[in-house]
Amino acid sequence: MSVNMEQLVSHSKHRGFIFQGSEIYGGLANTWDYGPLGVELKNNLKRAWWQKFIQENPMNVGLDAAILMNPKTWEASGHLGNFNDPMIDCKECKSRHRADKLIENKLEAEGNEMVVDGLPFDEMEKLIEKHDIVCPTCGEQNFTGIRQFNLMFQTQQGVTEGATDDIYLRPETAQGIFVNFKNVQRSMRKKLPFGIGQIGKSFRNEITPGNFIFRTREFEQMEMEFFCKPGEELDWYKYWKDFCHNWLTSLGIADENLRLREHDADELSHYSNATTDIEYKFPMGWGELWGIASRTDYDLGKHAEHSGEDFKYIDQETNERYIPYVIEPALGADRLALSFIADAYEEEELEDGSSRTVMKFHPAVAPYKAAIFPLSKKIGDQAKEIFADLSKHFMVDYDDAGSIGKRYRRHDEIGTPFCITYDFDSQEDGQVTVRDRDTMEQTRMPISELRSFLEGKMDC
Amino acid sequence: MSVNMEQLVSHSKHRGFIFQGSEIYGGLANTWDYGPLGVELKNNLKRAWWQKFIQENPMNVGLDAAILMNPKTWEASGHLGNFNDPMIDCKECKSRHRADKLIENKLEAEGNEMVVDGLPFDEMEKLIEKHDIVCPTCGEQNFTGIRQFNLMFQTQQGVTEGATDDIYLRPETAQGIFVNFKNVQRSMRKKLPFGIGQIGKSFRNEITPGNFIFRTREFEQMEMEFFCKPGEELDWYKYWKDFCHNWLTSLGIADENLRLREHDADELSHYSNATTDIEYKFPMGWGELWGIASRTDYDLGKHAEHSGEDFKYIDQETNERYIPYVIEPALGADRLALSFIADAYEEEELEDGSSRTVMKFHPAVAPYKAAIFPLSKKIGDQAKEIFADLSKHFMVDYDDAGSIGKRYRRHDEIGTPFCITYDFDSQEDGQVTVRDRDTMEQTRMPISELRSFLEGKMDC
Repeated sequence: MSVNMEQLVSHSKHRGFIFQGSEIYGGLANTWDYGPLGVELKNNLKRAWWQKFIQENPMNVGLDAAILMNPKTWEASGHLGNFNDPMIDCKECKSRHRADKLIENKLEAEGNEMVVDGLPFDEMEKLIEKHDIVCPTCGEQNFTGIRQFNLMFQTQQGVTEGATDDIYLRPETAQGIFVNFKNVQRSMRKKLPFGIGQIGKSFRNEITPGNFIFRTREFEQMEMEFFCKPGEELDWYKYWKDFCHNWLTSLGIADENLRLREHDADELSHYSNATTDIEYKFPMGWGELWGIASRTDYDLGKHAEHSGEDFKYIDQETNERYIPYVIEPALGADRLALSFIADAYEEEELEDGSSRTVMKFHPAVAPYKAAIFPLSKKIGDQAKEIFADLSKHFMVDYDDAGSIGKRYRRHDEIGTPFCITYDFDSQEDGQVTVRDRDTMEQTRMPISELRSFLEGKMDC
Repeated sequence: MSVNMEQLVSHSKHRGFIFQGSEIYGGLANTWDYGPLGVELKNNLKRAWWQKFIQENPMNVGLDAAILMNPKTWEASGHLGNFNDPMIDCKECKSRHRADKLIENKLEAEGNEMVVDGLPFDEMEKLIEKHDIVCPTCGEQNFTGIRQFNLMFQTQQGVTEGATDDIYLRPETAQGIFVNFKNVQRSMRKKLPFGIGQIGKSFRNEITPGNFIFRTREFEQMEMEFFCKPGEELDWYKYWKDFCHNWLTSLGIADENLRLREHDADELSHYSNATTDIEYKFPMGWGELWGIASRTDYDLGKHAEHSGEDFKYIDQETNERYIPYVIEPALGADRLALSFIADAYEEEELEDGSSRTVMKFHPAVAPYKAAIFPLSKKIGDQAKEIFADLSKHFMVDYDDAGSIGKRYRRHDEIGTPFCITYDFDSQEDGQVTVRDRDTMEQTRMPISELRSFLEGKMDC
């Protein structure tokens, strides 16, 4: 049974995963807040990424660069000049749209697939007239001309009176890595190949964000730039493409909901010699989850040119000097969280005719790894000792409200993989009942084995 | 021997902890990037906080609200109206200053301590004239009048043409918690007392930031709002004050570098009935590290008033309805990182007359928990197995470059608590040499015991 987005939004709100941002003030278009369970889910995903990409990988190191950067960064990267969307406003209802998307949607409905992004504005305007495209909000055709709309959020820093102190919120974390290439390489004495990974917020003033947390103006990225010797980049490109794909399935994402889409030659950015999108089958359709791009020496080359800094690496084996090539696996943490929520959500018919909602998260990703239930509040103190012991190592919940059956259902709904019931026998035999979320089977287990049992299940 | 800020900045740069932001473009005033070791240190501090305040504490839950919020939030909180600094510009050299600080510094130099913050602007202007205060940059006395300078960064969101879509980067994470009070309480079925904790970036357009990562325009906060029944707030205030203080010392901060400064009645905010600053002795002097404030029902009350939302809590035991009171322990993650760096840094004279630089981080906080050295590259494969095994559980380094003595020094300088040498005997007896950073003593230990030995040291 497939889930739709409304179900996910509603479930996420009522079960404490994701709330509308600033909800008590009517919200702020397209902002979302992670609730108590959502923040655990997202933190688990971020930690799992950091563990595999940085901690366990002797080639890679981490970084955490500032969101606010010197604007020359965005000159060099091209974001100041080229990071624009073609914007069009409806004169009737004042709604704002991306012209290319308006046209693509209309053409697609007419059975005519065409990439409009990148066409000159006058050609887009002709297509709007020719195909009789109207405002999707009010149905009229009374548009302004198409204009450039830079996607960077601009703000001002108050340093010196009268100085032009316009700055931007970074639209991607990648540039924070490139500008620090030499600082990292020197201080960590790294030799090629090596990667620098980073997790952090970025901001894009999208004209038409949407689909819950799929596309938001404020979003979190998990990007790595992997630097290698020119000529070896396509081997590393394949390595990281496989690595990223395997990482997703190791955490329980169903492989049939993933597909790898290799970019055609005419779709590639001019500096890229290979790019793949790992796409996920979201409730609204296939969408990009992870972009893996071979970007040659474009980024470091641009920063060398604009900063005057020498970005050449001295290869001690061959005595060559060259600007390293780079492979970039770029992932959005919010999109990733959405894919895990969508993949985990199930409404199940049970054998007894009843039904349940269950989030089948991999234990490494689940907000709580286990919930501890005292059968009766009378034996709460002993059950609390189990909570105190296990919570030193990972997130667990303590729940003593309602019948055991109700507590099972509640924890099914938030994806807790194991429920542990402490009963009157437990006082005698030191054992508890462990109930498995997915099979709903119950087994007795010594309290002393709980930690290693749960840690074993979290392995991935 | 006390360390000065220049030493910390230099050591942080050269050892991969903290780099100047956008350095290749001449920097961006007062931004800093965390390098590979800095991000591990900061992540360890964030995780340690989350573990004690959220994971192990059955009363509390986490949250991750958006940086961009509906501007009505800042009307309610008072930030739009009152979050201002008195700004003054020098007409000669165009430098910008905080008028209150200029006056306070001059008066202090004259042996006259006075709180100027909060005085009317005309009185501040009179003080500048009376005390012959000059521009600290150029030495002239030719100032503009004093003006309000709002500390929030402003930007625009492109939603609808012509609409006033000014928004702000949040100046504190706390409001994201208050506006979500009911969503969290309901979805998690929480009863008072309970707390909501959050870690995230905030932004303040400070006129005079400085002292390395002590005061930056972009900074990360670790805030908790703990909601309780009116009348019980001063007990909880004491509870959290002690809890915060103990947490710092449990992670190895020297108690003589901490002091608790209780605010006098005339220093308290009008809504607070008790506030303490936990101060740390930074290289430039005592500075606020953690503010613990009893804020009554001020925040929820203001949001109830501005949003029309009913923030009353129904006490099921007594059937009373009231707006909860709140205790707020607010900590800055960057300041916290600076205090740990300052506290850990030592230059030691050794018995043999040589000296070493050592960062005496608690193992829970140290970037690497251990470094694995093969005595010779010939036995690198076996040493790499130890790396692969331990790196599944925590950060370790693999280092095979240079003499063992050099490798010890290198890891002393970045605070790695244990260095593990795999030698030719290790192949026979399955044991390795473990060298303690602080005592420099070496002991033989079975490889199979390394994980639990290191985890035991990380306990706090």
